[in-house]
Amino acid sequence: MSTNAEILCVGTEILLGNITNTNATYLSQELSALGFNVYHHTVVGDNPARLAEAVEQALSRSDLVITTGGLGPTYDDLTKQTVANALGLEMELHQDILDDLRARWERRGQIMPENNAQQAWFPKGCRIIPNDWGTAPSCAIEKDGRTVVMLPGPPREMKGIWSTYVAPWLAERQDCVFVSRYCRVINIGESALENRLRTLLETSTNPTIAPYAGNGECMLRVTARAATREEAFALTEPVVELIRKECGDDLYTVDKDSMQQVVVELLKELGLTVATCESLTGGLVAGRITDIPGSSDVFECGFVTYSDRIKHSQVGVPEETLRQHTAVSLETAAAMAEGTLARSGASLALSTTGVAGPDDLPHAEVGTVYSAVAGPLGTRAVKLPMIHSRDRAYNRTMAASKALDLLRRYLLEMKQQQG
Amino acid sequence: MSTNAEILCVGTEILLGNITNTNATYLSQELSALGFNVYHHTVVGDNPARLAEAVEQALSRSDLVITTGGLGPTYDDLTKQTVANALGLEMELHQDILDDLRARWERRGQIMPENNAQQAWFPKGCRIIPNDWGTAPSCAIEKDGRTVVMLPGPPREMKGIWSTYVAPWLAERQDCVFVSRYCRVINIGESALENRLRTLLETSTNPTIAPYAGNGECMLRVTARAATREEAFALTEPVVELIRKECGDDLYTVDKDSMQQVVVELLKELGLTVATCESLTGGLVAGRITDIPGSSDVFECGFVTYSDRIKHSQVGVPEETLRQHTAVSLETAAAMAEGTLARSGASLALSTTGVAGPDDLPHAEVGTVYSAVAGPLGTRAVKLPMIHSRDRAYNRTMAASKALDLLRRYLLEMKQQQG
Repeated sequence: MSTNAEILCVGTEILLGNITNTNATYLSQELSALGFNVYHHTVVGDNPARLAEAVEQALSRSDLVITTGGLGPTYDDLTKQTVANALGLEMELHQDILDDLRARWERRGQIMPENNAQQAWFPKGCRIIPNDWGTAPSCAIEKDGRTVVMLPGPPREMKGIWSTYVAPWLAERQDCVFVSRYCRVINIGESALENRLRTLLETSTNPTIAPYAGNGECMLRVTARAATREEAFALTEPVVELIRKECGDDLYTVDKDSMQQVVVELLKELGLTVATCESLTGGLVAGRITDIPGSSDVFECGFVTYSDRIKHSQVGVPEETLRQHTAVSLETAAAMAEGTLARSGASLALSTTGVAGPDDLPHAEVGTVYSAVAGPLGTRAVKLPMIHSRDRAYNRTMAASKALDLLRRYLLEMKQQQG
Repeated sequence: MSTNAEILCVGTEILLGNITNTNATYLSQELSALGFNVYHHTVVGDNPARLAEAVEQALSRSDLVITTGGLGPTYDDLTKQTVANALGLEMELHQDILDDLRARWERRGQIMPENNAQQAWFPKGCRIIPNDWGTAPSCAIEKDGRTVVMLPGPPREMKGIWSTYVAPWLAERQDCVFVSRYCRVINIGESALENRLRTLLETSTNPTIAPYAGNGECMLRVTARAATREEAFALTEPVVELIRKECGDDLYTVDKDSMQQVVVELLKELGLTVATCESLTGGLVAGRITDIPGSSDVFECGFVTYSDRIKHSQVGVPEETLRQHTAVSLETAAAMAEGTLARSGASLALSTTGVAGPDDLPHAEVGTVYSAVAGPLGTRAVKLPMIHSRDRAYNRTMAASKALDLLRRYLLEMKQQQG
């Protein structure tokens, strides 16, 4: 079944440009993967008349309407009431939800402000969808062949509710299933990747292949449609193999979420631990590794060594190395990794040093980054392949990704030697 | 003059979620700063009927319509033709633009494909806007009190044309300016904040006040309209003062971007340096401090100490403390900060230790976090006021914010004693 869907986002902060509507991007990707045609995105503010107009228009032309925002406890959170009006439904109180809300406040030793009670009122006959990520439960209504799903605005809550409750429910109603595979690539730019895979991108219809780029990485989503999950998965396999062949080692994962997840799993598999020593990334590499649950088994410790003095005193970079080569050099990166290895007791150590920007240093241009791994195979120090930018946050994020990639390649080599 | 504006973005790639609609964010910010009320964002695909419907709707309700996308050379680039139809205008060829397009192709040694000629056709009577960043010129039409500005889809071209040609032209037509102030608050929830400020929120019209929430923090935007920047700023002042009075120390900044910026500036002002020692935040606190350009003047070094062994060996937490109180305790947080202070040579040290989740530890619930500052005023260790959640990333982000806030309060106390 191919159904028309539309996305209606409610929030004055989007219309003012204070936040970017990434909810619409996420929901569009998800709806496409489930086989829905998304023909409209609309954003309106927290204004009763314009919200009502937008809801009525969406219901007049789409089978499925997904809203985000306007479910909170404040006077300008109007989505549920407005949808109920448009569908001719009354609102009713769910006492169990109200009790639960009050209990949450009490556990924190506070009394619930009365305006929060509106979070327990819902259109009559709706399906309540739990919110395990925040206070406002979501809901879905089916009426006269139309379905409206109302989700909260904060992306973390919205995505949690969507992927746990809404997507499986909608997938059941479709008469085919979609399986998406995610091929994550580092060190190949988006247009270079598109050129290499042009024929595949232009001719493949099932699965479809969609490229995405962001933070100096690329991702290819391969989506197949079939009667069962197994058949759809089988359809993706030859295409994933082609991408694997074309990208080689630069394809760092299929189906896993991130570089840090790949690295943590490789460390676990090999029974190794890692320590980090960061200059320009300032803790981001350690932060990404420890973002993975269970990383405490493989993460030994981290140093953030910003100044030359601290590079010497905390991880033992020789003063001579710093004087002769400066802090932004292959030699310093190598000495940082080796000193960290010696002092931490970890099996491996990873270092970063470079110029985050926005300004150049006297002896090194912004975006110059060195990284090293020290471990059982000896020390590997490299100049990271950065894309030129003066954006500090971008340079730091990209340097952290590429340093983690250096560690991944080192671990793959160890794995090969063991196997 | 306060004019209603809307943004209409044309592109199937946005509806598929292949790209995020950052053009709408940019244009919203720009239009708000020029004093336009943006009441709608709409996205439609490269489909003639739905595009025509969207254009007609936009013209029926808005004085100014900004479109992006659909100006290219291919058969599905339909924006100019569709707008002309909706306004009852014919299209006409601009021979000079056609000659220029052909010349561009010839300079590259190629013959222009004939479909490119459509880029030289424009609605009759429009104002041509040069495109110094790409091939497709833009245009603007004024008719019956309505203005339509058509911009290309690629953000770089769109922003170049907007800031160079369109924004100055629209600014001339407006007779007022808007000034926004940003009040950032920690430790007060969104609904509690609204309750405290209810009267102000409900009665203030110039300035307007809008609350936002995210990542465990709240922000109030105060926006005033006046003939000049100075007058608009002056209108915001009494409201900002009222908010300051109501929130006290929990209002951590007006107009600055983030907690880490406030902390880095306070450190600079006091001539102090800081070192960090992180357990559950795993480098995020160091990462946030070093995200601020110039933080190298105030950031001494950071330790990420995940295991008990490393807490003891790297920053000298006594084994007795860990045994008696466990790693998740006030005593360990204090010992981490004190050990870091002693070993780093910094003026202050900040520590975090706790349970990020998703699972509880045997002796501590998920979301339990202790933090300490050691420095000239002695050691202050606290249990951070966290909001209950099992989300690892959320707990880590919130713990980092609240630990930085503990440091901020310590620095404010030092500043008071000095002053």
